Amino acid sequence: MANIIIENGYILTMDPAQDDIERGVVVIDNGIITQVAESTDETANTVIDAKGGVVMPGLVNTHTHAGMTIFRGYADDLTLSDWLENHIWPAEAQLTDNDLYIGTKLACLEMIRSGTTAFVDMYIHVDKVARAVEESGMRAALSYGMIDLGDETRAKSELKEGRRFVREWNGRADGRITTMYGPHAPHTCSRDFLGLVREYAFDDNVKIHIHVLETEDELNQMKEQFGMCSVNMLDELGFLDSDVIAAHCVWLSDGDIDILNERGVNVSHNPVSNMKLASGIAPVPKMLARGVNVSLGTDGCASNNNLNMFEEMKTAALLHKVDTSDPTVMPARQVLEMATINGAHAMGTNSGMLKVGCMADVIIVDMNKPHLTPIYDIPSHLVYSASGGDVRTTIVNGKILMDDYKVLSMDEQKVMKDANKAALNLVLRVNEQE
Amino acid sequence: MANIIIENGYILTMDPAQDDIERGVVVIDNGIITQVAESTDETANTVIDAKGGVVMPGLVNTHTHAGMTIFRGYADDLTLSDWLENHIWPAEAQLTDNDLYIGTKLACLEMIRSGTTAFVDMYIHVDKVARAVEESGMRAALSYGMIDLGDETRAKSELKEGRRFVREWNGRADGRITTMYGPHAPHTCSRDFLGLVREYAFDDNVKIHIHVLETEDELNQMKEQFGMCSVNMLDELGFLDSDVIAAHCVWLSDGDIDILNERGVNVSHNPVSNMKLASGIAPVPKMLARGVNVSLGTDGCASNNNLNMFEEMKTAALLHKVDTSDPTVMPARQVLEMATINGAHAMGTNSGMLKVGCMADVIIVDMNKPHLTPIYDIPSHLVYSASGGDVRTTIVNGKILMDDYKVLSMDEQKVMKDANKAALNLVLRVNEQE
Repeated sequence: MANIIIENGYILTMDPAQDDIERGVVVIDNGIITQVAESTDETANTVIDAKGGVVMPGLVNTHTHAGMTIFRGYADDLTLSDWLENHIWPAEAQLTDNDLYIGTKLACLEMIRSGTTAFVDMYIHVDKVARAVEESGMRAALSYGMIDLGDETRAKSELKEGRRFVREWNGRADGRITTMYGPHAPHTCSRDFLGLVREYAFDDNVKIHIHVLETEDELNQMKEQFGMCSVNMLDELGFLDSDVIAAHCVWLSDGDIDILNERGVNVSHNPVSNMKLASGIAPVPKMLARGVNVSLGTDGCASNNNLNMFEEMKTAALLHKVDTSDPTVMPARQVLEMATINGAHAMGTNSGMLKVGCMADVIIVDMNKPHLTPIYDIPSHLVYSASGGDVRTTIVNGKILMDDYKVLSMDEQKVMKDANKAALNLVLRVNEQE
Repeated sequence: MANIIIENGYILTMDPAQDDIERGVVVIDNGIITQVAESTDETANTVIDAKGGVVMPGLVNTHTHAGMTIFRGYADDLTLSDWLENHIWPAEAQLTDNDLYIGTKLACLEMIRSGTTAFVDMYIHVDKVARAVEESGMRAALSYGMIDLGDETRAKSELKEGRRFVREWNGRADGRITTMYGPHAPHTCSRDFLGLVREYAFDDNVKIHIHVLETEDELNQMKEQFGMCSVNMLDELGFLDSDVIAAHCVWLSDGDIDILNERGVNVSHNPVSNMKLASGIAPVPKMLARGVNVSLGTDGCASNNNLNMFEEMKTAALLHKVDTSDPTVMPARQVLEMATINGAHAMGTNSGMLKVGCMADVIIVDMNKPHLTPIYDIPSHLVYSASGGDVRTTIVNGKILMDDYKVLSMDEQKVMKDANKAALNLVLRVNEQE
């Protein structure tokens, strides 16, 4: 007897080797997908009727700062330097362990509600982040965000804390939590520091999560300092490899794209954040055409201001159509691949597809909604018409985290109440410092 | 005794003369707002507790083809000519009265659910469109979309049908329905025809709804044919006035913006559609800076693919930040103005604000959601974090159309069922023609 059978739904497999099934079943046992078919002889403890719904792999958000959810809407419509220096940094300086725990819980709650089953995070107070993820039931690749700013003492302590976290949390929560090294960016970390991070990551057999060329300022700064851009500098260091997730990658030259492709670097595209902060437009269609593994990320809630991967999918499709003056680029199914298979590939998890042997990270999207009626084409609706609120059921690692819109893995009202309280206290502390 | 009192909500007035009220009341009687205050001595038949919600003016969608909702997701990711010529036009040729009735019902259902209380429409089979609007309870400015393509006979019959509709439906449904003339566009209508439309509109004292410079193709075609762009040609004709709603306005020169501003033309900005069809980016920050009344529209569902004004607000804010490389343009409150006051101004209705004497078109947005937690700034959340599904209550003309997420003015399941059936039959008819 299996754990879960999902029946009667449209099965969007996202498996290149398996067509969608108009009305089929997905069987889950021991956290693994054991059958994807038109019907099954199997029985299960839990049978979910997905009638009128699309059963698909959970979405993978490959660039977040989940704890920043506590800053949602804290400061908007400002220049990047004003936003960072006068608002975000002073507030971050006041963050407590509890803020990060609550902020990450809130982030997980929002992601579960909007169909994200796994995410790739970089932030601070990481033990609390990890604890919140563990309790939420989600899958995540976590890292401590390290910045040395050329200071050797700081470099040492950052590396120490990064490694401590990598080793302490990797593989915990039934394997749902993996760890990575999280050097912030090429212009905030010294070359030597980045070289050490690279060695550490090989030693510990974990991946690396880093911001790359998010802004033109970074590009200019790197050229001034090193006479080359971030991608060239990182490549010269031997930093770039298939275990690297590079977030943003907005200011890439064609040559940079070739390097990323040759090294097998995974790019996390964050269109909403890049637009909101006016950072620029990443050359995503070019990257996809050359074969770079591009996935999608929301970035933190302070620059988005939500963690809704459905919105990220639509924005990605729209932005590149208008940017290239070509409405045929980034068609719906390709964008869905970015949010599922490509994200899973970046994380290195056997997921992102409904396929026998894959991890059971599965969502059901409710299509019985006015804004999803009538139905001609499922991928089109998922990318262009749906919203995060249409997700009815979220399953991670074979466990049901949300069932028919009810979140089971946490007390939703309590998380919201705690977050509001933490935000209020945070503002009081920030104001006291001014 | 009043009809409705909404109490305990955050009152976002959108009235330049009245600050928001942290916790207040809105009193509605006979379809009109009779009080906006911290508290009231008034009693009412219906008292709505808006605790944890934002009470605000309903959103105004100033460019739709509501009946096209029957084509939602019918054809995507195609070039404009392929999309129109090989998909939309053949399907439009098969549309029946019933398709338009059902399509518009479905559109109204979606709009009511996502907080839109009024819309400006242009399409065909317009008696059925008007009937659906009448039954839905919504407010709308409707027009028959006229195209003569330089054919005099066609021009006559189009004008006749346009005028018949204008005169037959103006002011019906307790004044909720007004009518307009809807000449399609400067490159699909002859000069003479446009001149006649202008006269007719003055005669009948109704407004005009027209597409202007949506595509670069239109710009090139106009320059070739007239040696000037659409705005110059229309201005030379004396067509442009404060009763004109010009949709899209993507390919404007600075001089065009000055003309639109001097004539008091209302511009409907449709960022999602312009991005999806790769039409280009309208110079909205420039228009707003010069004082042009710019509102927001979703366009039809075949090029969006929904009617969600929350999504349109966020997309508008994001698009112009990245396009101008300036994150301070289009701040949240300005975008809210576009979706409320500016839209009402374009329609010429006394609405778009919570103010004594205004029409009671009011929505309540439920803020007790994980993705709207915590709360620092209400306008920021409405533009950057909320989605249409967060609207809890929708009131039009003092009538409650949706109460606590339950649509009262129509049978939701029946509308969806009818739409699915109509779509199925439409596809069968289109396939028979091939």
